[in-house]
Amino acid sequence: MIKLNFEKMGGLVPAIAQDYETGEVLMLAFMDKEAWEATLSTGLASYHSRTRNTLWVKGKTSGNVQHVKEIRIDCDDDTVLLKVEQAGGAACHTGHKSCFYKK
Amino acid sequence: MIKLNFEKMGGLVPAIAQDYETGEVLMLAFMDKEAWEATLSTGLASYHSRTRNTLWVKGKTSGNVQHVKEIRIDCDDDTVLLKVEQAGGAACHTGHKSCFYKK
Repeated sequence: MIKLNFEKMGGLVPAIAQDYETGEVLMLAFMDKEAWEATLSTGLASYHSRTRNTLWVKGKTSGNVQHVKEIRIDCDDDTVLLKVEQAGGAACHTGHKSCFYKK
Repeated sequence: MIKLNFEKMGGLVPAIAQDYETGEVLMLAFMDKEAWEATLSTGLASYHSRTRNTLWVKGKTSGNVQHVKEIRIDCDDDTVLLKVEQAGGAACHTGHKSCFYKK
């Protein structure tokens, strides 16, 4: 069982979503304990919405959910890397596949 | 000129380092304004060390510097994605190529 160091990060750890086939980095968001546990139990990437201060199951309204294929955590247990299958073709609310479309 | 929204993030924006050839995600750290400007002016990935509260030029002591090949920012200008050439073969202080070696 993976244990994340939420305390160190003030309750929120950064989570990177990466396309599990292409390796493209899709987005970064934050997870609190609730979002982490929801991700583990449902297999759908879930984050903590800082603007709405609530659980955010990615794609729940848009349909662009992220099916988690693999989870990695970093050396000091305070960052998550999700390898996901992105439904709907777009991780970004702008319609781009990745949020990182600005060079 | 890229402008980052440091204010939104309490002065520190997350920065993902990704191998520019393989697409492997190497590490995540944080940048303050000083680290961001150092990265732009030197071409070497520079972060803010939260433990030492100072500028951290990645690899300055170990030699495992990161040559920045491309910079992307996300849709709302508060996360950085660096595509880097990792010198010395290891981004992680544990000797692993990537910090995300735990599945």
